[in-house]
Formats: sequence, C-alpha cells, structure tokens
Amino acid sequence: MKHRHWALVVVGLLLVGGRTAAEPVVSTFKLANDMQVVVIPDHRVPVVTHMVWYRVGGGEDPWGTSGIAHFLEHLMFKSTGKMKSGEFSRIITRLGGRDNAATTHDTTSYFQRVAKEHLREVMELEADRMVNLRLIEDEVRTERNVILEERRTNVDGNPLSLLSEQLNAALYENHPYHRPVLGWAHEMASLSRQDAASFYKRYYAPNNAVLVVAGDVTPEEVRPLAQAIYGRNKPNPAVARRVRPMDPPDIAVRRVRLEDARAGAPMLLRYYKVPSYASAAAGEAESIELLTWILGGDDTSRTYRRLVGEQLASTAGSNYESDGLDGGRLAFVVIPVPGVTLERVEAVLDATIAEVLANGVTQQELDRAKSALEAQRVFESDNQATLARRYGLGVALGRSIADIDAAPARMRERTLADLQRVAGSFLRPERSVTGSLVQPAAAKREPTSPGPAAAK
Amino acid sequence: MKHRHWALVVVGLLLVGGRTAAEPVVSTFKLANDMQVVVIPDHRVPVVTHMVWYRVGGGEDPWGTSGIAHFLEHLMFKSTGKMKSGEFSRIITRLGGRDNAATTHDTTSYFQRVAKEHLREVMELEADRMVNLRLIEDEVRTERNVILEERRTNVDGNPLSLLSEQLNAALYENHPYHRPVLGWAHEMASLSRQDAASFYKRYYAPNNAVLVVAGDVTPEEVRPLAQAIYGRNKPNPAVARRVRPMDPPDIAVRRVRLEDARAGAPMLLRYYKVPSYASAAAGEAESIELLTWILGGDDTSRTYRRLVGEQLASTAGSNYESDGLDGGRLAFVVIPVPGVTLERVEAVLDATIAEVLANGVTQQELDRAKSALEAQRVFESDNQATLARRYGLGVALGRSIADIDAAPARMRERTLADLQRVAGSFLRPERSVTGSLVQPAAAKREPTSPGPAAAK
Repeated sequence: MKHRHWALVVVGLLLVGGRTAAEPVVSTFKLANDMQVVVIPDHRVPVVTHMVWYRVGGGEDPWGTSGIAHFLEHLMFKSTGKMKSGEFSRIITRLGGRDNAATTHDTTSYFQRVAKEHLREVMELEADRMVNLRLIEDEVRTERNVILEERRTNVDGNPLSLLSEQLNAALYENHPYHRPVLGWAHEMASLSRQDAASFYKRYYAPNNAVLVVAGDVTPEEVRPLAQAIYGRNKPNPAVARRVRPMDPPDIAVRRVRLEDARAGAPMLLRYYKVPSYASAAAGEAESIELLTWILGGDDTSRTYRRLVGEQLASTAGSNYESDGLDGGRLAFVVIPVPGVTLERVEAVLDATIAEVLANGVTQQELDRAKSALEAQRVFESDNQATLARRYGLGVALGRSIADIDAAPARMRERTLADLQRVAGSFLRPERSVTGSLVQPAAAKREPTSPGPAAAK
Repeated sequence: MKHRHWALVVVGLLLVGGRTAAEPVVSTFKLANDMQVVVIPDHRVPVVTHMVWYRVGGGEDPWGTSGIAHFLEHLMFKSTGKMKSGEFSRIITRLGGRDNAATTHDTTSYFQRVAKEHLREVMELEADRMVNLRLIEDEVRTERNVILEERRTNVDGNPLSLLSEQLNAALYENHPYHRPVLGWAHEMASLSRQDAASFYKRYYAPNNAVLVVAGDVTPEEVRPLAQAIYGRNKPNPAVARRVRPMDPPDIAVRRVRLEDARAGAPMLLRYYKVPSYASAAAGEAESIELLTWILGGDDTSRTYRRLVGEQLASTAGSNYESDGLDGGRLAFVVIPVPGVTLERVEAVLDATIAEVLANGVTQQELDRAKSALEAQRVFESDNQATLARRYGLGVALGRSIADIDAAPARMRERTLADLQRVAGSFLRPERSVTGSLVQPAAAKREPTSPGPAAAK
C-alpha cells in the first residue's frame, strides 16, 4: 500500500462519527421572484465565488436543434444594453478575477471568483445578462463557427470522444442523454439566432436559476444585495417542472465498435445505466459510488489488480457519473497491453463483475472505499469553488441542502448487502453498452454519408 | 429451376421494352384547397377503392408522446357531429364494403372499397372526419387501452418484434425512425385527449392529404365530386414542408443481443441503413431492390444457397423496406439449424456480402432479378388496392406520378456496375446493426426496471 492510501485511511478515520470542521454551514432562501439563493460562508480569505446555475441543459435542446443550450452559454458572453460583446470576461479579469461557464445535459452554470469587494459588480453583470442579452445575427453566426470548431477539436478529432458519443446514442433509447451536449455537427451548423432567442426566453429567468455565493460573506449580507440586484428580474410564469422523455425498459445488450485510423492502442469501454444522486432511492447512489471505487477507483481496485496487476492491461478503472438529473452512468475503461485482445480483457472484466454479483465485496474493501471517498470529500470541501459547485448543482437538480449534507452519513451506513444489492440491480448486461475502439482492420475506408435523407 | 421461376421469367420477358396493358394511366390534380387527388381508372368491375393519405406518421410524434399518430388513427373511428362512435365502419360494412387504416413512420392512411355507386357517401364520411372529429375523454381513455393491448400482443408478446425495436433504436441515432410507430409503452400509457387533439389540429387538413380514387371512375367524374365534398374543408396554413431530425454520420458498428425465454430457435437479424425510393438518387433504390432480391429474395438467392442450401440454416433471406420518406432499410434474417451457432451463420452472411462487394453479381442473376421484380410489379398492378397504395403512398411522400411510373424502366436499365456501386456505398458495417435473439444463457432473469429517472 502506498503512502497516499495510508493518508486517505487516516483522514477517513478522523472523520467517522461526525461532521468535520471543514464542512460549512450552508443556508438557502428564495428571493421574491422565486430565485433560489445558496450561501456558503468561508471566511479564510477575502474572496467570493459567485455562481448562477440555470435548471436547463442539453437535455432541454428541442429535437433537431441539439447543442442549443451549450451554444447559448457561449452567446451569454455577447452584449446587453449595458455591456459590449466580450466585455463580461474583460471586466472580471480587470477586477483580478476569473470566470467561466459550463453546460451539461442538466444544467448551465456561470461562475466568477473575485475579491469580496467586487461581489456587487459581478452580481450586476450576471443579473443583467440573465434577461437583457442581445442576440445579433452576425455575432451568432461567428460564434457558431466557434462551437463547430470546438466540436471538431474535442469530439471529431478524438476517436474516444466519438466512441463515447456512439455509446450514449446506443445506451439511451429515448432519453435526451442519448445526444451530445455539444450537439450533432449537422444540427449545430444550422442553429439560428431565433433558436437561441427562443431558448433564452423560455429558460433564462430568476425562477429557473440558483444563485450561489461562497466565501467571505454571510447570508445576512447576501440576501439584501441579491434582492436589490437579482430581485429586479421578473419571473417567467412559463417555467415548469422539468419532465423529459424517459427510456423504455432495458431489455437488450448493446455493443458498438468504432474503427478509427487515429486510434492508438485498442480500448474497451463499458457503460451501465445506473441511478444518479438526484434520481436514486436514498442510499443507492452512495452504494454505487462505493462499488465503483472498489471495482476500479485506484490501483488496489478489483479491475486494476485483475487486469493491470496480471499484465493484461496498461489501464483499467471505473468511474461513476453521479450528477445527472434523471440517471447516472457507471463506466469501465480498459486498455489491453500489446498482444492481449479486447476479447480477453472483456472476459476478465466480466468475470470480475460476475464475482461481485455472486459474492459481493469484502468488509475490508468497503471500509477502505468509505475512507477514501470520505477523505476525497473533505479535500474537496477545502476548495471554495468545489463546494459552491456541490451545492449549486445539487440544488439546481432539486436536492435539498439537508440531502446533500446527509450523503457522508448515508455513505458511512452502507453495508456489504447494500453494495451487492445495487450491483445485482444495475450491473446487468441489458442495462449496458460495450464499446471497442480499434484500428481499421482493412485498408483505410472512405468516410460514409450521413443517415436517412441526408443521402438525398 | 422450378416451374414458378420459369413463369416469372416468361412474364418478365413479355414486359421488357414497354408499358404493359396492366399499367394504368394515372392522373393527378389539386382541389382549390390544395388537396391532392390521384385517379386510377380500372373499369373491369364496378367497384372503387377510396383512400386518403395524410402526410404525417409516427415520425411526427412529438418527443415524449410516441405513438400519438397511430393512436389518432384509432380515434378517427370515433364520433363527429354527424356520426356516432364506431359508425364509420358499420356504414361501410352495411354498404357491402371493406375499410381499414394504417400508420407508418411517414404516413397515415384510411381506405375503403365499395361498389361504385357508394363513392359519394364514402367521400362524405371521410371528408367529415378529416375536420370534425370529436375527441371525448372517456372514449380516448378506452381506446388507449386498445392500443396498449395491441402493443402487448404484437410487440411485447413477440421477442422478434422486441428485438427489431431495439435494432431500430440502435441504428437510428437521432432520426425518428429510432422509435416504434406504436410508441414506447410508458409513453403510450399517458397519451391524452389533448395530445391527440393538438396532433389532429396540426396535421389533419386537406392541404396535408392525398385522395386516391381507383376503379370504375374517370378523372372527369372524380374532380367535381371531390371538389364538392372535400373542397368544403378549409386548408390549414400551418401545414409546412416536412423536416425531421436527421442522423449524424454513421461511424460505428452496432450490435444488440436479446435474451428471451420465449425465443424459439436462435435468430440473426442484420439491418443496413440504405436510401428509400423517396430519398435516393435516381436509380439507386431500384439497384438496391435488385441487389436485395439477388442476396435473399428467393431460394436461388445467394444467402439461401450458402445457408439453407448448405444445411446451416432453416431460413435465410433479405428484405428491402423502400417506402420511407427519409431513408430505407435492407434487412437480413437467418435462422440456423440446431447445432449451428449464430456466429457461424453470421460469418457466412458476412462472406456472402463481402463476395458481392468484391466481385459484384453475375449478369444472369441481374437478369433473373429484373424479371422477377418486374413480374411482381405486374401482378401487383392487377390489384386495385395495391395500385391505389402505390400511387397514394408515392404522392404522399412527394414523388411525382412520372417518377413512380418510371421505376420499371429505371430498373431495366440497371447494370452490374450500378449494383456493385450501391453495395459498396451502403452495405458497410458502420451503416449496420446486427441483432441476435437467443434463449437466456443462465437461469431466468427478473425483469429490469425502466431507464433513467423511472428508477426514482
């Protein structure tokens, strides 16, 4: 066991049994216009993290205009009546701060980190672009090239990203998770000013947003400030509870094979549809998180030992995407060493999973996973932005502060039986898709034409 | 060569070089309200086939309400101001006629066959329900149970249908062909009166319909009658050119495996995304149709000889779904004989296809296929309902009468090179999905829970 694992265990042991000093006291309230506010005091340094989370993401892209949520995130850095195009980030930089934005299937978030005295100014800027964005034809067209280039570089230029996109398309039969957040290229290419404007009008409103202020502030300071600034924005009565198309029952085992001349070593991916923190029954997500760690979280994990330890693979691990609104995804990745086939490593992966299904994990594995994950949470809690993200995301997905705060306790309570139960419920072949990325078998192929009707 | 093949060849030879007596002279015109009318004279018996084709189908189901186009087809047999629920079919029966209706991804059609003297009455009934349908809450709820039962019997009760649904879901990444026309059960269960009413209002209008009258009539008789009856219905200005979400480029090879205790013999399906008559470049669909016949059309076909002939399979054949608006599907099915694995028959299928890709087909095969398909068309042309369907469907999908009539000539002109070209363009692994239906390997599994969020 390496030094860092001991460290994790030690930190973990310190934590068992109660809230630690590092866990902040988070409060939340609503403004008169129904905007949710979350305050996370952290008085160690005189800086603040300011975030606005919209309860909208790629999952809300209308069918045929995939990528519009992400495109709008880019366009939010254009002009308003008060602000020139591109000025938002320049102001933050001039204030000595940093800013960024992100779009997932489930949320769109904007964040800035500035010295405390600039909080008001940042709020003014963010509140302004929530409702006063100007969408100008020329700027929209120019920015569309930016997102298309982003896709070319990050997805089309990366066989593993392409394969992952195809796996999602095969795994989710009906749910919007089957589409990439960036969008399909052919649909991105015709996203219009009108598409962005409709989306903005429908989803950008105080009553569809969560404000997070973390740092050297108190709820008593934040409330009047937020009311004075964000309180000016009128709620949109059309904002409704989020209801997305759901998948039919999972009955068939799926496989996807991508041949790509740019592929390095062959690679195996396996995705399982599992619940997320927001969609799971109480304790289930924590069990999946522990199980994922035991199966592939570090180099003492089962897949690592069976595959890397046995010199069959150079990489083997697992990962739990637990942040979705409607569900999560447990992913395995294995890169075999030269001379070992994908079939061979897949058989070992299957055997490793089958063993857990049959016999569960050991108490020692469970204890180690609990310690490691609890330590990870503590380390994260030391980072203002990570904390702000934890609560902003959770609240944006409809979770309560109490529910978010109860996760560590729920994780501590998980038993061997709980883990075996979630393994049995969710690590089923018919809930999975298996992907392989390989060099083309034959000579280089020509590119194929697009799907239906594009053939015309 | 068996007797019936000789017959086909003989009929085929008779046809080469010109239009036959069996091919009707079809005319088309529009009413003042933009309703398209197609008249197909056939004076051999004093009956008429009356059809209305709407340019809407499951492909227009809004995301999350799959099955609504088909549901509305059922509801069209409920009441209007003039007609009681269920009366439509009772009247047709009383007139000594027959009626039916059908929904595909691309069209919804209603047809009746009656003695010529009842044409006016049938038109009155059909024109009435085009715009005056009453959707009553109780009746909607009752009929919803009917479609749910239809799905349970025809799809959920049939592992091959279930597998086919899963194959479509995997093959079409974004296009609405990925969803079943019947709908996903969980979405069908909440289809509402309001869903049906919105769909009806948007898509049922004379300017979104094609009227076909085939039989003992002339265009001169039909035009004033149609204008007097259907001409009363106002066009809907919101009817627009059909634009559906399209698939991204096909880059990955897909596989789907369904284990089902009700499966009989194991079965292999292979679907390729190919163009349809409506979406293809001129001649391409005809080439695919010939190629499909040569590969698996009858018991002299390549797959039949290599698989059934070699006693590896009890069934082997192919089928071309050529009727789609945005694309078609070339399907292979193989049922191995006991003792032969799916892997073995799949390898033979792959080798059979690879041989065509490498060397094309023979002139003798092409000539036989042309004769067989031309004979098939002639036999079909002898059936009034089949003829009416051919033109009604074609015009509903935007094809001209001239284009439909030119298909036999285009088919006669196809060359060996044409067939090899479409094989090379479309029989590519990355345009395909392969499905296997097998008995469960292990003991019987419990049913799984639905996809994301339904887990909640």
